[in-house]
Amino acid sequence: MTHVTFLGTGEMGSALAEAAAHAGYQTTVWNRSAVKAQPLKAAGATVADTVADAVASADLIVVCLFDHASVHDVLDPVARILKGRNVINLTTTSPDGARELAQWAADAVISYLDGGIMATPEMIGTPASTVLYSGARAVFDAHRSLLEKWGTADYFGPDAGMASLYDLALLAGMYAMFAGFFQGAAMVAPAGISATEFADRAVPWLQAVAPSVAEYAAVIDGGDFSVPGQQSLVFSDLTDIVDAGRAQGVNTEVVDAVQRLIQRQIDAGFGAHGFARIFESIRAA
Amino acid sequence: MTHVTFLGTGEMGSALAEAAAHAGYQTTVWNRSAVKAQPLKAAGATVADTVADAVASADLIVVCLFDHASVHDVLDPVARILKGRNVINLTTTSPDGARELAQWAADAVISYLDGGIMATPEMIGTPASTVLYSGARAVFDAHRSLLEKWGTADYFGPDAGMASLYDLALLAGMYAMFAGFFQGAAMVAPAGISATEFADRAVPWLQAVAPSVAEYAAVIDGGDFSVPGQQSLVFSDLTDIVDAGRAQGVNTEVVDAVQRLIQRQIDAGFGAHGFARIFESIRAA
Repeated sequence: MTHVTFLGTGEMGSALAEAAAHAGYQTTVWNRSAVKAQPLKAAGATVADTVADAVASADLIVVCLFDHASVHDVLDPVARILKGRNVINLTTTSPDGARELAQWAADAVISYLDGGIMATPEMIGTPASTVLYSGARAVFDAHRSLLEKWGTADYFGPDAGMASLYDLALLAGMYAMFAGFFQGAAMVAPAGISATEFADRAVPWLQAVAPSVAEYAAVIDGGDFSVPGQQSLVFSDLTDIVDAGRAQGVNTEVVDAVQRLIQRQIDAGFGAHGFARIFESIRAA
Repeated sequence: MTHVTFLGTGEMGSALAEAAAHAGYQTTVWNRSAVKAQPLKAAGATVADTVADAVASADLIVVCLFDHASVHDVLDPVARILKGRNVINLTTTSPDGARELAQWAADAVISYLDGGIMATPEMIGTPASTVLYSGARAVFDAHRSLLEKWGTADYFGPDAGMASLYDLALLAGMYAMFAGFFQGAAMVAPAGISATEFADRAVPWLQAVAPSVAEYAAVIDGGDFSVPGQQSLVFSDLTDIVDAGRAQGVNTEVVDAVQRLIQRQIDAGFGAHGFARIFESIRAA
Protein backbone atom coordinates (compact mmCIF):
# COMPACT_ATOMS: atom_id res chain seq x y z
CA MET A 1 0.00 0.00 0.00
CA THR A 2 1.29 3.44 -0.94
CA HIS A 3 2.29 5.51 2.08
CA VAL A 4 1.72 9.22 1.53
CA THR A 5 2.93 11.96 3.87
CA PHE A 6 1.45 15.45 3.86
CA LEU A 7 3.57 18.36 5.09
CA GLY A 8 1.30 21.26 5.92
CA THR A 9 -2.31 20.82 7.01
CA GLY A 10 -3.84 24.21 6.50
CA GLU A 11 -7.27 24.17 4.90
CA MET A 12 -5.96 22.96 1.55
CA GLY A 13 -3.42 20.47 2.91
CA SER A 14 -6.10 19.02 5.18
CA ALA A 15 -8.51 18.60 2.26
CA LEU A 16 -5.84 16.79 0.24
CA ALA A 17 -4.82 14.52 3.15
CA GLU A 18 -8.41 13.72 4.03
CA ALA A 19 -9.17 12.69 0.45
CA ALA A 20 -6.11 10.39 0.46
CA ALA A 21 -7.02 8.81 3.79
CA HIS A 22 -10.63 8.29 2.70
CA ALA A 23 -9.39 6.64 -0.50
CA GLY A 24 -7.50 4.09 1.62
CA TYR A 25 -3.93 5.39 1.35
CA GLN A 26 -1.69 4.99 4.38
CA THR A 27 -1.61 8.67 5.35
CA THR A 28 0.76 10.55 7.64
CA VAL A 29 0.42 14.26 8.32
CA TRP A 30 2.65 16.91 9.88
CA ASN A 31 1.99 20.56 10.56
CA ARG A 32 4.15 23.18 12.26
CA SER A 33 1.27 23.96 14.57
CA ALA A 34 0.29 20.37 15.51
CA VAL A 35 -3.21 21.31 16.64
CA LYS A 36 -4.22 21.87 13.02
CA ALA A 37 -3.23 18.27 12.17
CA GLN A 38 -5.20 16.57 14.95
CA PRO A 39 -8.63 16.62 13.23
CA LEU A 40 -7.16 14.37 10.48
CA LYS A 41 -6.85 11.51 12.97
CA ALA A 42 -10.60 11.05 12.61
CA ALA A 43 -10.08 10.42 8.89
CA GLY A 44 -7.53 7.70 9.70
CA ALA A 45 -4.31 9.69 9.32
CA THR A 46 -1.28 9.33 11.59
CA VAL A 47 -0.02 12.62 13.04
CA ALA A 48 3.79 12.85 13.11
CA ASP A 49 5.63 15.00 15.64
CA THR A 50 8.53 15.96 13.39
CA VAL A 51 9.14 16.35 9.67
CA ALA A 52 11.84 13.66 9.85
CA ASP A 53 9.37 11.21 11.43
CA ALA A 54 6.71 12.14 8.91
CA VAL A 55 8.82 11.45 5.84
CA ALA A 56 10.83 8.48 7.19
CA SER A 57 8.88 5.71 5.50
CA ALA A 58 6.77 7.59 2.95
CA ASP A 59 6.65 6.59 -0.73
CA LEU A 60 5.42 10.04 -1.62
CA ILE A 61 5.70 13.37 0.15
CA VAL A 62 3.05 16.00 -0.65
CA VAL A 63 3.96 19.54 0.38
CA CYS A 64 1.29 22.21 0.86
CA LEU A 65 2.73 25.08 2.90
CA PHE A 66 2.39 28.85 3.06
CA ASP A 67 4.89 29.95 0.42
CA HIS A 68 8.16 29.20 -1.37
CA ALA A 69 10.30 30.14 1.64
CA SER A 70 8.38 27.84 3.97
CA VAL A 71 8.96 24.90 1.57
CA HIS A 72 12.72 25.36 1.99
CA ASP A 73 12.35 25.85 5.75
CA VAL A 74 10.63 22.48 6.03
CA LEU A 75 12.43 20.42 3.36
CA ASP A 76 16.04 21.62 3.59
CA PRO A 77 16.72 19.95 6.97
CA VAL A 78 15.46 16.56 5.66
CA ALA A 79 16.97 16.73 2.17
CA ARG A 80 19.23 13.74 2.84
CA ILE A 81 16.31 11.61 4.07
CA LEU A 82 14.36 12.50 0.91
CA LYS A 83 17.12 11.27 -1.43
CA GLY A 84 15.59 8.95 -4.06
CA ARG A 85 12.04 9.80 -2.96
CA ASN A 86 9.11 11.40 -4.80
CA VAL A 87 7.98 14.88 -3.77
CA ILE A 88 4.93 16.76 -5.05
CA ASN A 89 4.85 20.43 -4.10
CA LEU A 90 1.40 22.00 -4.19
CA THR A 91 2.38 25.18 -2.36
CA THR A 92 1.59 28.26 -4.45
CA THR A 93 4.93 29.53 -5.80
CA SER A 94 6.03 31.59 -8.77
CA PRO A 95 7.19 29.76 -11.93
CA ASP A 96 10.78 30.72 -11.08
CA GLY A 97 10.25 29.53 -7.50
CA ALA A 98 9.06 26.15 -8.80
CA ARG A 99 12.07 25.93 -11.12
CA GLU A 100 14.42 26.75 -8.25
CA LEU A 101 12.85 24.00 -6.12
CA ALA A 102 13.15 21.54 -9.02
CA GLN A 103 16.85 22.35 -9.29
CA TRP A 104 17.27 22.03 -5.53
CA ALA A 105 15.54 18.63 -5.72
CA ALA A 106 17.70 17.50 -8.64
CA ASP A 107 20.83 18.41 -6.67
CA ALA A 108 19.52 16.31 -3.75
CA VAL A 109 18.50 13.41 -6.06
CA ILE A 110 14.80 13.88 -5.29
CA SER A 111 12.11 13.40 -7.97
CA TYR A 112 10.13 16.65 -7.99
CA LEU A 113 6.68 17.34 -9.41
CA ASP A 114 5.19 20.81 -9.00
CA GLY A 115 1.47 21.44 -8.93
CA GLY A 116 -1.03 24.27 -9.03
CA ILE A 117 -4.42 23.61 -7.46
CA MET A 118 -7.33 25.13 -9.38
CA ALA A 119 -9.86 24.61 -6.60
CA THR A 120 -10.90 25.85 -3.21
CA PRO A 121 -10.44 23.35 -0.35
CA GLU A 122 -14.19 22.57 -0.46
CA MET A 123 -13.90 21.63 -4.15
CA ILE A 124 -11.17 18.99 -3.63
CA GLY A 125 -12.43 15.60 -4.79
CA THR A 126 -15.35 17.08 -6.76
CA PRO A 127 -15.65 17.23 -10.56
CA ALA A 128 -15.07 21.01 -10.40
CA SER A 129 -11.50 20.53 -9.13
CA THR A 130 -8.44 20.41 -11.38
CA VAL A 131 -4.79 20.26 -10.37
CA LEU A 132 -2.14 21.23 -12.92
CA TYR A 133 1.25 19.50 -12.73
CA SER A 134 4.65 19.93 -14.34
CA GLY A 135 8.12 18.58 -13.63
CA ALA A 136 8.99 14.89 -13.16
CA ARG A 137 6.70 12.84 -15.43
CA ALA A 138 7.62 9.65 -13.56
CA VAL A 139 6.15 11.02 -10.32
CA PHE A 140 2.96 12.03 -12.12
CA ASP A 141 2.60 8.59 -13.71
CA ALA A 142 3.45 6.62 -10.56
CA HIS A 143 0.88 8.42 -8.41
CA ARG A 144 -1.78 9.34 -10.95
CA SER A 145 -4.51 7.34 -9.22
CA LEU A 146 -3.96 9.37 -6.03
CA LEU A 147 -3.83 12.65 -7.95
CA GLU A 148 -7.18 11.85 -9.55
CA LYS A 149 -8.73 11.52 -6.10
CA TRP A 150 -8.30 15.30 -5.78
CA GLY A 151 -9.79 16.18 -9.16
CA THR A 152 -8.77 16.18 -12.80
CA ALA A 153 -4.98 15.76 -13.01
CA ASP A 154 -3.29 17.45 -15.98
CA TYR A 155 0.40 17.23 -16.84
CA PHE A 156 2.06 20.19 -18.60
CA GLY A 157 5.54 18.92 -19.37
CA PRO A 158 8.96 18.73 -17.73
CA ASP A 159 9.40 22.49 -17.03
CA ALA A 160 8.53 22.58 -13.31
CA GLY A 161 7.46 26.23 -13.67
CA MET A 162 4.73 25.57 -16.22
CA ALA A 163 1.99 24.45 -13.80
CA SER A 164 2.62 27.52 -11.67
CA LEU A 165 2.54 29.85 -14.68
CA TYR A 166 -0.79 28.37 -15.79
CA ASP A 167 -2.10 28.48 -12.22
CA LEU A 168 -1.19 32.17 -11.79
CA ALA A 169 -2.65 33.03 -15.20
CA LEU A 170 -5.99 31.49 -14.17
CA LEU A 171 -5.80 33.18 -10.76
CA ALA A 172 -5.33 36.55 -12.51
CA GLY A 173 -8.79 36.06 -14.03
CA MET A 174 -10.26 35.00 -10.70
CA TYR A 175 -8.90 37.87 -8.63
CA ALA A 176 -9.84 40.44 -11.27
CA MET A 177 -13.38 39.02 -11.30
CA PHE A 178 -13.57 39.16 -7.50
CA ALA A 179 -12.33 42.76 -7.46
CA GLY A 180 -14.89 43.72 -10.09
CA PHE A 181 -17.59 42.10 -7.96
CA PHE A 182 -16.48 44.13 -4.92
CA GLN A 183 -16.61 47.34 -6.93
CA GLY A 184 -20.12 46.49 -8.11
CA ALA A 185 -21.25 45.64 -4.57
CA ALA A 186 -19.81 48.95 -3.35
CA MET A 187 -21.62 50.86 -6.12
CA VAL A 188 -25.08 49.55 -5.18
CA ALA A 189 -24.51 49.57 -1.40
CA PRO A 190 -25.41 53.27 -0.95
CA ALA A 191 -28.79 52.45 -2.60
CA GLY A 192 -29.51 50.03 0.24
CA ILE A 193 -28.69 46.83 -1.68
CA SER A 194 -26.83 44.29 0.45
CA ALA A 195 -23.75 42.51 -0.86
CA THR A 196 -25.66 39.22 -0.61
CA GLU A 197 -28.54 40.54 -2.70
CA PHE A 198 -26.02 41.81 -5.28
CA ALA A 199 -24.20 38.45 -5.24
CA ASP A 200 -27.49 36.64 -5.92
CA ARG A 201 -27.53 38.42 -9.27
CA ALA A 202 -23.78 38.65 -9.86
CA VAL A 203 -23.07 34.89 -9.62
CA PRO A 204 -25.43 33.75 -12.42
CA TRP A 205 -24.46 36.83 -14.43
CA LEU A 206 -20.72 36.15 -14.22
CA GLN A 207 -21.29 32.46 -14.97
CA ALA A 208 -23.46 33.34 -17.98
CA VAL A 209 -20.97 35.76 -19.53
CA ALA A 210 -17.79 33.79 -18.75
CA PRO A 211 -18.07 31.74 -22.00
CA SER A 212 -17.67 34.99 -23.95
CA VAL A 213 -13.94 34.76 -23.29
CA ALA A 214 -13.82 31.79 -25.67
CA GLU A 215 -15.16 34.06 -28.43
CA TYR A 216 -12.52 36.68 -27.62
CA ALA A 217 -9.90 33.92 -27.65
CA ALA A 218 -10.98 32.86 -31.14
CA VAL A 219 -10.52 36.45 -32.34
CA ILE A 220 -7.09 36.68 -30.68
CA ASP A 221 -5.94 33.39 -32.20
CA GLY A 222 -7.36 34.42 -35.59
CA GLY A 223 -5.15 37.52 -35.46
CA ASP A 224 -7.75 39.84 -37.04
CA PHE A 225 -9.45 42.11 -34.51
CA SER A 226 -11.68 43.64 -37.21
CA VAL A 227 -13.76 40.54 -37.99
CA PRO A 228 -17.52 41.30 -38.00
CA GLY A 229 -19.98 40.44 -35.22
CA GLN A 230 -17.91 41.83 -32.35
CA GLN A 231 -18.70 44.50 -29.76
CA SER A 232 -16.47 47.41 -30.73
CA LEU A 233 -13.92 49.01 -28.43
CA VAL A 234 -15.73 52.36 -28.71
CA PHE A 235 -18.95 50.68 -27.53
CA SER A 236 -16.99 48.98 -24.71
CA ASP A 237 -15.85 52.34 -23.33
CA LEU A 238 -16.23 52.10 -19.54
CA THR A 239 -16.75 55.80 -18.83
CA ASP A 240 -20.32 55.19 -17.60
CA ILE A 241 -19.11 52.57 -15.11
CA VAL A 242 -16.26 54.76 -13.89
CA ASP A 243 -18.49 57.85 -13.61
CA ALA A 244 -21.29 55.95 -11.85
CA GLY A 245 -18.75 54.46 -9.44
CA ARG A 246 -17.30 57.87 -8.62
CA ALA A 247 -20.79 59.34 -8.27
CA GLN A 248 -21.42 56.64 -5.63
CA GLY A 249 -18.15 57.63 -3.94
CA VAL A 250 -16.42 54.29 -4.50
CA ASN A 251 -12.83 53.53 -5.49
CA THR A 252 -12.73 52.69 -9.21
CA GLU A 253 -9.04 51.69 -9.57
CA VAL A 254 -9.71 48.26 -11.07
CA VAL A 255 -12.17 49.47 -13.70
CA ASP A 256 -9.91 52.49 -14.35
CA ALA A 257 -7.14 50.04 -15.26
CA VAL A 258 -9.41 48.20 -17.71
CA GLN A 259 -10.51 51.52 -19.19
CA ARG A 260 -6.86 52.51 -19.78
CA LEU A 261 -6.29 49.28 -21.72
CA ILE A 262 -9.35 50.04 -23.88
CA GLN A 263 -8.45 53.71 -24.36
CA ARG A 264 -4.92 52.83 -25.46
CA GLN A 265 -6.33 50.87 -28.41
CA ILE A 266 -8.91 53.55 -29.25
CA ASP A 267 -6.15 56.20 -29.18
CA ALA A 268 -4.11 54.03 -31.54
CA GLY A 269 -6.97 54.20 -34.04
CA PHE A 270 -8.67 50.87 -33.39
CA GLY A 271 -11.97 52.03 -31.88
CA ALA A 272 -13.99 50.13 -34.48
CA HIS A 273 -12.14 46.88 -33.75
CA GLY A 274 -13.52 44.32 -31.30
CA PHE A 275 -13.11 44.39 -27.54
CA ALA A 276 -10.68 41.45 -27.72
CA ARG A 277 -8.12 43.92 -29.04
CA ILE A 278 -7.30 45.02 -25.47
CA PHE A 279 -5.18 41.85 -25.53
CA GLU A 280 -2.81 44.00 -27.60
CA SER A 281 -2.56 46.44 -24.67
CA ILE A 282 -1.52 43.59 -22.39
CA ARG A 283 0.58 41.07 -24.23
CA ALA A 284 4.34 41.07 -24.40
CA ALA A 285 5.60 43.86 -26.66
CA MET B 1 -52.82 43.60 -30.66
CA THR B 2 -50.01 45.58 -29.09
CA HIS B 3 -47.97 47.51 -31.63
CA VAL B 4 -44.33 47.86 -30.60
CA THR B 5 -41.77 50.06 -32.35
CA PHE B 6 -38.05 49.57 -31.97
CA LEU B 7 -35.75 52.54 -32.52
CA GLY B 8 -32.24 51.24 -33.13
CA THR B 9 -31.54 47.85 -34.69
CA GLY B 10 -27.93 47.21 -33.84
CA GLU B 11 -27.19 43.69 -32.65
CA MET B 12 -29.10 44.14 -29.40
CA GLY B 13 -32.00 46.10 -30.82
CA SER B 14 -32.39 43.51 -33.56
CA ALA B 15 -32.45 40.66 -31.03
CA LEU B 16 -35.17 42.44 -29.02
CA ALA B 17 -37.28 43.24 -32.10
CA GLU B 18 -36.93 39.73 -33.49
CA ALA B 19 -38.11 38.23 -30.20
CA ALA B 20 -41.14 40.54 -30.21
CA ALA B 21 -42.03 39.74 -33.83
CA HIS B 22 -41.65 36.01 -33.23
CA ALA B 23 -43.93 36.29 -30.20
CA GLY B 24 -46.64 37.74 -32.46
CA TYR B 25 -46.43 41.44 -31.60
CA GLN B 26 -47.08 43.92 -34.39
CA THR B 27 -43.50 45.09 -34.78
CA THR B 28 -42.10 48.17 -36.50
CA VAL B 29 -38.38 48.94 -36.65
CA TRP B 30 -36.31 51.96 -37.55
CA ASN B 31 -32.57 52.40 -37.75
CA ARG B 32 -30.52 55.42 -38.79
CA SER B 33 -28.68 53.21 -41.26
CA ALA B 34 -31.71 51.46 -42.81
CA VAL B 35 -29.71 48.54 -44.17
CA LYS B 36 -29.32 47.18 -40.62
CA ALA B 37 -33.10 47.07 -40.20
CA GLN B 38 -33.86 45.15 -43.41
CA PRO B 39 -33.07 41.64 -42.09
CA LEU B 40 -35.92 42.05 -39.57
CA LYS B 41 -38.46 41.96 -42.42
CA ALA B 42 -37.89 38.21 -42.53
CA ALA B 43 -39.07 37.99 -38.92
CA GLY B 44 -42.27 39.83 -39.83
CA ALA B 45 -41.32 43.38 -38.82
CA THR B 46 -42.25 46.49 -40.78
CA VAL B 47 -39.31 48.77 -41.58
CA ALA B 48 -40.16 52.47 -41.19
CA ASP B 49 -38.34 55.17 -43.18
CA THR B 50 -38.50 57.84 -40.50
CA VAL B 51 -38.71 57.99 -36.72
CA ALA B 52 -42.00 59.88 -37.00
CA ASP B 53 -43.49 57.13 -39.20
CA ALA B 54 -42.13 54.45 -36.87
CA VAL B 55 -43.72 55.84 -33.72
CA ALA B 56 -46.96 57.19 -35.29
CA SER B 57 -49.24 54.34 -34.25
CA ALA B 58 -47.13 52.45 -31.69
CA ASP B 59 -48.50 51.54 -28.25
CA LEU B 60 -44.95 51.14 -26.97
CA ILE B 61 -41.63 52.53 -28.18
CA VAL B 62 -38.49 50.58 -27.29
CA VAL B 63 -35.26 52.53 -27.68
CA CYS B 64 -31.91 50.76 -28.05
CA LEU B 65 -29.36 53.17 -29.45
CA PHE B 66 -25.65 53.87 -29.10
CA ASP B 67 -25.59 56.16 -26.06
CA HIS B 68 -27.43 58.81 -24.07
CA ALA B 69 -26.79 61.54 -26.65
CA SER B 70 -28.18 59.44 -29.49
CA VAL B 71 -31.41 58.89 -27.52
CA HIS B 72 -31.98 62.65 -27.45
CA ASP B 73 -30.97 62.98 -31.10
CA VAL B 74 -33.69 60.49 -32.06
CA LEU B 75 -36.47 61.28 -29.55
CA ASP B 76 -36.30 65.07 -29.20
CA PRO B 77 -37.71 65.77 -32.70
CA VAL B 78 -40.71 63.50 -32.05
CA ALA B 79 -41.39 64.46 -28.43
CA ARG B 80 -44.79 65.93 -29.28
CA ILE B 81 -45.86 62.78 -31.15
CA LEU B 82 -44.83 60.68 -28.12
CA LYS B 83 -47.05 62.65 -25.71
CA GLY B 84 -49.12 60.21 -23.64
CA ARG B 85 -47.20 57.19 -24.98
CA ASN B 86 -45.05 54.56 -23.24
CA VAL B 87 -41.30 54.54 -23.86
CA ILE B 88 -38.80 51.94 -22.65
CA ASN B 89 -35.17 52.96 -23.05
CA LEU B 90 -32.72 50.06 -23.12
CA THR B 91 -29.76 52.10 -24.33
CA THR B 92 -26.84 51.85 -21.89
CA THR B 93 -26.70 55.14 -20.03
CA SER B 94 -25.39 56.31 -16.68
CA PRO B 95 -27.80 56.48 -13.72
CA ASP B 96 -27.80 60.28 -14.02
CA GLY B 97 -28.37 59.98 -17.76
CA ALA B 98 -31.42 57.79 -17.12
CA ARG B 99 -32.74 60.26 -14.55
CA GLU B 100 -32.28 63.14 -16.98
CA LEU B 101 -34.21 61.23 -19.65
CA ALA B 102 -36.97 60.45 -17.14
CA GLN B 103 -37.28 64.17 -16.35
CA TRP B 104 -37.28 65.03 -20.07
CA ALA B 105 -40.06 62.46 -20.55
CA ALA B 106 -42.06 63.78 -17.61
CA ASP B 107 -41.85 67.29 -19.07
CA ALA B 108 -43.16 65.92 -22.39
CA VAL B 109 -45.92 63.85 -20.68
CA ILE B 110 -44.33 60.56 -21.77
CA SER B 111 -44.33 57.48 -19.48
CA TYR B 112 -40.69 56.45 -19.22
CA LEU B 113 -39.22 53.13 -18.10
CA ASP B 114 -35.45 52.67 -18.15
CA GLY B 115 -33.81 49.28 -18.51
CA GLY B 116 -30.41 47.62 -18.26
CA ILE B 117 -29.93 44.45 -20.28
CA MET B 118 -27.89 41.78 -18.48
CA ALA B 119 -27.35 39.65 -21.57
CA THR B 120 -25.50 39.50 -24.83
CA PRO B 121 -27.68 39.69 -27.98
CA GLU B 122 -27.39 35.89 -28.37
CA MET B 123 -28.79 35.39 -24.85
CA ILE B 124 -32.01 37.39 -25.48
CA GLY B 125 -35.01 35.12 -24.96
CA THR B 126 -33.01 32.43 -23.13
CA PRO B 127 -33.24 31.63 -19.41
CA ALA B 128 -29.77 33.20 -18.94
CA SER B 129 -31.08 36.65 -19.88
CA THR B 130 -32.30 39.20 -17.34
CA VAL B 131 -33.34 42.80 -17.96
CA LEU B 132 -33.46 45.22 -15.03
CA TYR B 133 -36.04 48.01 -15.10
CA SER B 134 -36.74 51.15 -13.10
CA GLY B 135 -38.93 54.20 -13.59
CA ALA B 136 -42.62 54.13 -14.50
CA ARG B 137 -44.19 51.09 -12.85
CA ALA B 138 -47.29 51.42 -15.05
CA VAL B 139 -45.20 50.84 -18.19
CA PHE B 140 -43.56 47.79 -16.61
CA ASP B 141 -46.92 46.32 -15.61
CA ALA B 142 -48.67 47.08 -18.91
CA HIS B 143 -46.00 45.40 -21.03
CA ARG B 144 -44.68 42.73 -18.70
CA SER B 145 -45.62 39.85 -21.00
CA LEU B 146 -43.47 41.37 -23.78
CA LEU B 147 -40.59 42.07 -21.38
CA GLU B 148 -40.62 38.44 -20.29
CA LYS B 149 -40.09 37.38 -23.91
CA TRP B 150 -36.57 38.82 -23.60
CA GLY B 151 -35.68 37.14 -20.30
CA THR B 152 -36.40 37.58 -16.61
CA ALA B 153 -37.87 41.06 -16.06
CA ASP B 154 -37.08 42.69 -12.71
CA TYR B 155 -38.42 46.02 -11.51
CA PHE B 156 -36.25 48.12 -9.15
CA GLY B 157 -38.52 50.99 -8.19
CA PRO B 158 -39.47 54.45 -9.46
CA ASP B 159 -35.93 55.96 -9.54
CA ALA B 160 -35.19 55.68 -13.28
CA GLY B 161 -31.44 55.56 -12.51
CA MET B 162 -31.60 52.41 -10.40
CA ALA B 163 -31.64 49.86 -13.23
CA SER B 164 -28.65 51.57 -14.82
CA LEU B 165 -26.75 51.64 -11.52
CA TYR B 166 -27.34 47.93 -11.02
CA ASP B 167 -26.49 47.23 -14.66
CA LEU B 168 -23.17 49.13 -14.45
CA ALA B 169 -22.32 47.45 -11.13
CA LEU B 170 -22.75 44.01 -12.72
CA LEU B 171 -20.82 45.13 -15.81
CA ALA B 172 -17.92 46.20 -13.55
CA GLY B 173 -17.59 42.55 -12.52
CA MET B 174 -17.83 41.35 -16.10
CA TYR B 175 -15.26 43.72 -17.58
CA ALA B 176 -12.83 43.09 -14.71
CA MET B 177 -13.21 39.34 -15.27
CA PHE B 178 -12.61 39.75 -19.01
CA ALA B 179 -9.51 41.87 -18.40
CA GLY B 180 -8.16 39.29 -15.95
CA PHE B 181 -8.73 36.61 -18.58
CA PHE B 182 -6.78 38.63 -21.14
CA GLN B 183 -3.90 39.06 -18.71
CA GLY B 184 -3.85 35.32 -18.06
CA ALA B 185 -3.96 34.54 -21.78
CA ALA B 186 -1.08 36.96 -22.35
CA MET B 187 0.94 35.32 -19.55
CA VAL B 188 0.77 31.82 -21.05
CA ALA B 189 1.04 32.93 -24.70
CA PRO B 190 4.87 33.11 -24.69
CA ALA B 191 4.83 29.44 -23.56
CA GLY B 192 3.05 28.51 -26.78
CA ILE B 193 -0.44 28.19 -25.29
CA SER B 194 -3.15 29.61 -27.55
CA ALA B 195 -5.85 31.89 -26.17
CA THR B 196 -8.43 29.24 -27.11
CA GLU B 197 -6.60 26.53 -25.17
CA PHE B 198 -6.38 28.90 -22.19
CA ALA B 199 -10.10 29.76 -22.51
CA ASP B 200 -10.97 26.04 -22.47
CA ARG B 201 -9.64 26.00 -18.91
CA ALA B 202 -10.53 29.54 -17.89
CA VAL B 203 -14.27 29.27 -18.60
CA PRO B 204 -15.02 26.32 -16.26
CA TRP B 205 -12.57 27.76 -13.73
CA LEU B 206 -14.23 31.17 -13.62
CA GLN B 207 -17.68 29.56 -13.49
CA ALA B 208 -16.57 27.28 -10.63
CA VAL B 209 -15.11 30.07 -8.49
CA ALA B 210 -17.79 32.71 -9.19
CA PRO B 211 -20.04 31.44 -6.33
CA SER B 212 -17.25 32.38 -3.89
CA VAL B 213 -18.44 35.98 -4.17
CA ALA B 214 -21.58 34.97 -2.23
CA GLU B 215 -19.33 33.87 0.66
CA TYR B 216 -17.48 37.20 0.52
CA ALA B 217 -20.84 38.97 0.44
CA ALA B 218 -21.94 37.16 3.61
CA VAL B 219 -18.78 38.36 5.36
CA ILE B 220 -19.32 41.94 4.14
CA ASP B 221 -22.95 41.95 5.29
CA GLY B 222 -21.94 40.38 8.61
CA GLY B 223 -19.58 43.30 9.17
CA ASP B 224 -16.83 41.19 10.77
CA PHE B 225 -13.90 40.54 8.44
CA SER B 226 -12.13 38.42 11.06
CA VAL B 227 -14.60 35.50 11.14
CA PRO B 228 -12.82 32.11 10.87
CA GLY B 229 -12.65 29.95 7.75
CA GLN B 230 -11.58 32.69 5.35
CA GLN B 231 -8.53 33.01 3.10
CA SER B 232 -6.48 35.77 4.71
CA LEU B 233 -5.40 38.95 2.95
CA VAL B 234 -1.75 38.03 3.52
CA PHE B 235 -2.32 34.71 1.77
CA SER B 236 -4.16 36.53 -1.03
CA ASP B 237 -1.12 38.71 -1.78
CA LEU B 238 -0.84 38.84 -5.59
CA THR B 239 2.91 39.40 -5.81
CA ASP B 240 3.47 36.02 -7.49
CA ILE B 241 0.90 36.85 -10.19
CA VAL B 242 2.34 40.32 -10.75
CA ASP B 243 5.94 39.04 -10.83
CA ALA B 244 5.11 36.13 -13.13
CA GLY B 245 3.25 38.51 -15.45
CA ARG B 246 6.17 40.91 -15.59
CA ALA B 247 8.59 38.01 -16.13
CA GLN B 248 6.49 37.11 -19.18
CA GLY B 249 6.69 40.72 -20.34
CA VAL B 250 2.97 41.42 -20.07
CA ASN B 251 1.14 44.51 -18.83
CA THR B 252 -0.11 43.86 -15.28
CA GLU B 253 -2.11 47.05 -14.67
CA VAL B 254 -5.37 45.29 -13.77
CA VAL B 255 -3.82 42.88 -11.27
CA ASP B 256 -1.65 45.73 -9.94
CA ALA B 257 -4.85 47.60 -9.10
CA VAL B 258 -6.25 44.59 -7.20
CA GLN B 259 -2.93 44.19 -5.39
CA ARG B 260 -3.06 47.84 -4.26
CA LEU B 261 -6.53 47.27 -2.76
CA ILE B 262 -5.19 44.24 -0.86
CA GLN B 263 -2.00 45.99 0.23
CA ARG B 264 -3.94 48.95 1.57
CA GLN B 265 -5.74 46.67 4.05
CA ILE B 266 -2.56 44.80 4.98
CA ASP B 267 -0.79 48.13 5.60
CA ALA B 268 -3.70 49.17 7.82
CA GLY B 269 -3.00 46.12 9.99
CA PHE B 270 -5.65 43.73 8.68
CA GLY B 271 -3.44 41.10 7.01
CA ALA B 272 -4.99 38.29 9.07
CA HIS B 273 -8.53 39.31 8.08
CA GLY B 274 -10.31 37.68 5.17
CA PHE B 275 -9.95 38.64 1.50
CA ALA B 276 -13.45 40.17 1.53
CA ARG B 277 -11.94 43.08 3.46
CA ILE B 278 -10.72 44.66 0.21
CA PHE B 279 -14.35 45.84 0.04
CA GLU B 280 -13.18 48.36 2.65
CA SER B 281 -10.60 49.66 0.15
CA ILE B 282 -13.35 50.24 -2.39
CA ARG B 283 -16.55 51.34 -0.72
CA ALA B 284 -17.62 54.90 -0.12
CA ALA B 285 -15.55 56.53 2.62
